[in-house]
Amino acid sequence: MPGILVILDGLGGRPTDLGGSTCLEAAATPVLDELAARGAVGLMDPVGPGVRPGSDTSHLSIFGYDPFRVYTGRGAFEALGIGLDVRGGDVCFRANFATVEERGGELVVVDRRAGRLPDGKPLEGAIAGIDLHEFGLELLFRVSTEHRGALVLRGAGASPAVTDTDPRKEGKPVERCRPLEPAAGRTADAVNLFTRRAHEVLQDHPFNRERIRRGERPANAVLLRGAAVMPHLRPITVEYGIRGVCVAGGALYKGVAKLAGLTVLDVPGATGDLKTDLRAKADAALAALDRAELVFVHIKGTDNASHDGDAEAKRAFIERIDREFFGTLVARLPLDKVHLCVSGDHTTPPGVKEHTADPVPALFVGPAVRPDRVRAFGERAAGEGGLGRFTGRLVPQLLGYCDLGPKFGS
Amino acid sequence: MPGILVILDGLGGRPTDLGGSTCLEAAATPVLDELAARGAVGLMDPVGPGVRPGSDTSHLSIFGYDPFRVYTGRGAFEALGIGLDVRGGDVCFRANFATVEERGGELVVVDRRAGRLPDGKPLEGAIAGIDLHEFGLELLFRVSTEHRGALVLRGAGASPAVTDTDPRKEGKPVERCRPLEPAAGRTADAVNLFTRRAHEVLQDHPFNRERIRRGERPANAVLLRGAAVMPHLRPITVEYGIRGVCVAGGALYKGVAKLAGLTVLDVPGATGDLKTDLRAKADAALAALDRAELVFVHIKGTDNASHDGDAEAKRAFIERIDREFFGTLVARLPLDKVHLCVSGDHTTPPGVKEHTADPVPALFVGPAVRPDRVRAFGERAAGEGGLGRFTGRLVPQLLGYCDLGPKFGS
Repeated sequence: MPGILVILDGLGGRPTDLGGSTCLEAAATPVLDELAARGAVGLMDPVGPGVRPGSDTSHLSIFGYDPFRVYTGRGAFEALGIGLDVRGGDVCFRANFATVEERGGELVVVDRRAGRLPDGKPLEGAIAGIDLHEFGLELLFRVSTEHRGALVLRGAGASPAVTDTDPRKEGKPVERCRPLEPAAGRTADAVNLFTRRAHEVLQDHPFNRERIRRGERPANAVLLRGAAVMPHLRPITVEYGIRGVCVAGGALYKGVAKLAGLTVLDVPGATGDLKTDLRAKADAALAALDRAELVFVHIKGTDNASHDGDAEAKRAFIERIDREFFGTLVARLPLDKVHLCVSGDHTTPPGVKEHTADPVPALFVGPAVRPDRVRAFGERAAGEGGLGRFTGRLVPQLLGYCDLGPKFGS
Repeated sequence: MPGILVILDGLGGRPTDLGGSTCLEAAATPVLDELAARGAVGLMDPVGPGVRPGSDTSHLSIFGYDPFRVYTGRGAFEALGIGLDVRGGDVCFRANFATVEERGGELVVVDRRAGRLPDGKPLEGAIAGIDLHEFGLELLFRVSTEHRGALVLRGAGASPAVTDTDPRKEGKPVERCRPLEPAAGRTADAVNLFTRRAHEVLQDHPFNRERIRRGERPANAVLLRGAAVMPHLRPITVEYGIRGVCVAGGALYKGVAKLAGLTVLDVPGATGDLKTDLRAKADAALAALDRAELVFVHIKGTDNASHDGDAEAKRAFIERIDREFFGTLVARLPLDKVHLCVSGDHTTPPGVKEHTADPVPALFVGPAVRPDRVRAFGERAAGEGGLGRFTGRLVPQLLGYCDLGPKFGS
């Protein structure tokens, strides 16, 4: 029996969101309320009570991984989040375009943000083309926003035990990357060669010549920090012997799903923001039920509205999700032959504009779920639900209801 | 103040068990309902949310051990389950009687199940009598069902870091046991000598001569696999400075209780199935209150009916437990001077016939327990209970109410 997990990003809220109610409570959600009436609800702490989760740590936990064991730092998951195809064992760095000057054989940082570079995209290809094969390392590079990006080193010898090249202060020279253990020597050498080659290819890049011509600071160096290795996650598809697919717009969610062994579908119109085509996502999820036991759907817009501090937009988007996504889904979902879980990855109250540690409502429905008396989907309703309070692990619980879980013990 | 823990094996169910109700919900249980009304209820995940537990891992967790740390594999706990007196440090193997032929000095496996041997019991003594004292190892062997059994090696040098002798395929020779680390060399040598000696004592065994005479395949070898060491558990009786007794029919539960430091009582009529004498078990539990602070009672029949897929038998047995066991117990139990916990070790819905990951209802009653408003003992009632949802650790909670718990910190 298959299962569908729908994560509404940043779903949870606080009573201060909208005149005493959370956005979810204030929203008219007849379809979700009907699902709550048929199933059972509870409260989930994404990573643990009182832990303010990132989207990366919360999704790891929701998929059943222990983020305290497998989360190796922002570097690795930021690289995933900007769409790099990061794999287990890859060493990832957070990268900054910067402005440097040669002084006495050293590269001194003049501006860590290269004159507030609006978009480093035109320089991406030049950096991604740097060759480190002499170290047995493959290089991936991608720009995210403004002067920011991520670098990935892949290869048997890649080690995260190296120091930063980013001096974190202007007026200081770019630091030499040093190995923190003998086995990391080759990676440190590769990073230092990367720094020199990046300066070479950027220095005379037409984009920078044009910036200098306009009196702007050139983005003529790449500073690296926060080396982190992407953990080798045991795919849940292997652990459970199932096929899984992911319907998501945002790169991070696609990336975590891929690490967990899911196949990421390309859904036209799934944009990862408030304009996303919710009916197309529901259609994609329904179609995927023929070819997978686990369908993971991620809807990002709820969190975007929350980070913007726009409670009204969040409420309106939740209503649209109820109508367009769940309306489409439930109309064609055989709820006696499938299990459905709906929750969020964390609470993002529009008044705070950031993730908070408050627990998130979670709903399970399907033939194996013991229905409770709660008839609405909301934060306070979930606190009265029959599933109580638990930490993460939505995917293991969903697959458990579907009788797909491996047995631990005999 | 003493405490009694009663585990009804495979107690939990699903709404699909009996026309929208679980077997426990459908059963008339006036005594358990009265206990629920006097005490408080909640939902327990035996090992964790979404983890489908074995009986071994769930009992470890219920006694307060972390199965992710101490569970060393099926070999050790299967040996316990078939009634071998396994102790911490013992190395256990899963064993198969097989049919082999000598070809060019090698023993080649012709049939891994020795012609579907109906019962290996007549050969048990011959194998158990094999002497490995020259390696400083004591040997225990017991047959479970058909061609299956378990072998235990005990002694200071015993190591689980050895390979299997079972080639897992017919037509292949019995494999030589190899050490996976230098310290395991002696165990590997002992296993290889065991293989030869087992073949010798079985080859001319009257039981096998008779099989050959009847045209059946002889059980003339023992194949070993899955070496696992039984963990050294710190007995809770030592940890808490208490005496504990166990009233159970099934070997696994007696075995785990023994590892936890409890004294296993011999209760005539406690059979570990649906025919068990429930009044005798209640009498034994009551009598044990004079000599122990913790009384652990295990009733297996609920799980047997569940594995048989017989929801009506499960409901009827729960009603018999309520009447005969709890009726007898509560009539003579001073509930102002003792704490009682009633729960299951996992959910086994008759429709699934296997353990599932769904949480299990748990009930605590006694002077220290804060009563909630729930007045029935059942899965959905437990979801509305005052104890919320928690993972395992029934024994520590019970002993906590009894003011017997050691302090962690100062």
